[in-house]
Amino acid sequence: MKHVAIVGATGAVGQEMIRVLEQRKFPVSTLTLLASKRSLGKSMTFQGKQVPVQELTHDSFAGVNVALFSAGATTTKQFAPSAVKAGAIVVDNSSAFRMDPGTPLVIPEINPEDLKSHKGIIANPNCCAIILLMAVYPIHKINPIKRIIVSTYQSASGAGAKAMEELRLQAADVLAGKAPVPSVFQFPIAFNVFSHNAAMDPETGYNGEELKVIEESHKILHNDIPISPTCIRVSTMRAHAESVHLELTNPVDLDAIRRAIENSPGVRLQDDRKTNHFPMPLEASGQDDVIVGRLRRDIASKDGREMDLFCCGDQLLKGAALNAVQIAEIV
Amino acid sequence: MKHVAIVGATGAVGQEMIRVLEQRKFPVSTLTLLASKRSLGKSMTFQGKQVPVQELTHDSFAGVNVALFSAGATTTKQFAPSAVKAGAIVVDNSSAFRMDPGTPLVIPEINPEDLKSHKGIIANPNCCAIILLMAVYPIHKINPIKRIIVSTYQSASGAGAKAMEELRLQAADVLAGKAPVPSVFQFPIAFNVFSHNAAMDPETGYNGEELKVIEESHKILHNDIPISPTCIRVSTMRAHAESVHLELTNPVDLDAIRRAIENSPGVRLQDDRKTNHFPMPLEASGQDDVIVGRLRRDIASKDGREMDLFCCGDQLLKGAALNAVQIAEIV
Repeated sequence: MKHVAIVGATGAVGQEMIRVLEQRKFPVSTLTLLASKRSLGKSMTFQGKQVPVQELTHDSFAGVNVALFSAGATTTKQFAPSAVKAGAIVVDNSSAFRMDPGTPLVIPEINPEDLKSHKGIIANPNCCAIILLMAVYPIHKINPIKRIIVSTYQSASGAGAKAMEELRLQAADVLAGKAPVPSVFQFPIAFNVFSHNAAMDPETGYNGEELKVIEESHKILHNDIPISPTCIRVSTMRAHAESVHLELTNPVDLDAIRRAIENSPGVRLQDDRKTNHFPMPLEASGQDDVIVGRLRRDIASKDGREMDLFCCGDQLLKGAALNAVQIAEIV
Repeated sequence: MKHVAIVGATGAVGQEMIRVLEQRKFPVSTLTLLASKRSLGKSMTFQGKQVPVQELTHDSFAGVNVALFSAGATTTKQFAPSAVKAGAIVVDNSSAFRMDPGTPLVIPEINPEDLKSHKGIIANPNCCAIILLMAVYPIHKINPIKRIIVSTYQSASGAGAKAMEELRLQAADVLAGKAPVPSVFQFPIAFNVFSHNAAMDPETGYNGEELKVIEESHKILHNDIPISPTCIRVSTMRAHAESVHLELTNPVDLDAIRRAIENSPGVRLQDDRKTNHFPMPLEASGQDDVIVGRLRRDIASKDGREMDLFCCGDQLLKGAALNAVQIAEIV
């Protein structure tokens, strides 16, 4: 049994972490919920009991075995070393240590062996990278990927619980004939689509989300295949979708690829051409599996080595909380 | 002055056609509004006057000079020959004659010379193809495109006025905690994303919308460059967005491409990396121009000939009604 702490327990991902620990019957002896001072007085339900939220301090980690961080990179940088010093293993959902060469960045279905080298902190990858790699890794294993071009359809949840509420409020305003009022996002999210809100590198014109997808995918796959992402927010609540174009090493064998996906853990094939039923955010919401479909050979490909697919995954679950708890289960 | 008829006058595109004729001061002597029997009794405002909707019959076109059709391929196939026989020039927004070798398929900014060969019917291209080609043609002119990979973010309007209303009703239901009820679309459109509802070719796994983008682009550009489209519906009202990856003939010169877009009719550059302000459906709605931005060299490209961009266009205007009226202006 383990003493588990959740840092950022009141956030969208923190709340899912509590539920995932329950559902997966993680052997929790004590659950400590930590958040900023603002959340003092709140409590969250875990295994039928109310657990009060405590203020995060450097002394919060005495006796903690596993600390799940989901409170942004600044909080991680400030408090994760204290957790490690107190003897906890940190699984961090922020970008703080993801590209640190000494920190493993892990999707348990893909590179669990990287966990061995951890020095107290393990980084949970970016949600878009997780969903992309979960979808394409079964293909990569049987026919190595040489090139990825991906356009995303990212949900409000990626920007937190307040962004999800903003989508609801703006949608209600628009339906009532009022102008949507942006607050979390710079632009209206209801009934709109916009380039991802992550900070942009003015030199390359890539935003931070796109650079994460590239760099983190390389670190997880231990390669440097060319990846061209375009990250876009859409008017959905909590599941990301991605339209993926792949160039493979050998000609595309769709039957073999379908079998590979069906036989891989953490992914589910939804690829019904007759009923036009393919992965959708609404059906991926609340699901552990990343859903993969619209598998097709690229009819424009001259040598038959290109293909396309569409995938969806719950941004808060496999894109964040679930993957973090899976890491904690292994370590 | 011309006698103009609009077939499908009460539909989403038909209504925009009336407005576009007004705004562009098309020299209309008489406006005849035609629709199915169900719309009898309705009337529409044109130049401040109420024009009654008449039932479409084979005898509707006496004296008509220009007939703008937007009532689906079946109606066009049935009634366009009667309009031509009566001496009208037909501009048809359906897919009925688009790929007919004897029918010009025209975007006035791109291939106006194809209009010369018309035999009474001119086809208005698919909305996605128009918006894609408007965005990339300025680039194609200075550095010929060798390859297009495009993922779309298509609005409800592409499925008509009822689909737009369905998006509103479903969004209200979801906000009220009720389950969305699909009717026009097979799947919920509110707060969701799904593979385009066009019929799918079970053999290739491409849907009809994707095949239109490929075939119509080839006909308009008079080439057969490889195009790989993935067509997706999103929760927006009336402007399509597209994420476009291009391989060019020569290395990408972004400054030259920006200038080319700025100097091209019918497109507007919105490409501000500092403020993260790029094309968005909400800002493209009601606008004639296709908005183009997020121009960037693909940093994964080995020889510097690949680039990405994002574009948005009003599906009902440049994607349909405006392009049709522009064709009518020329002929």
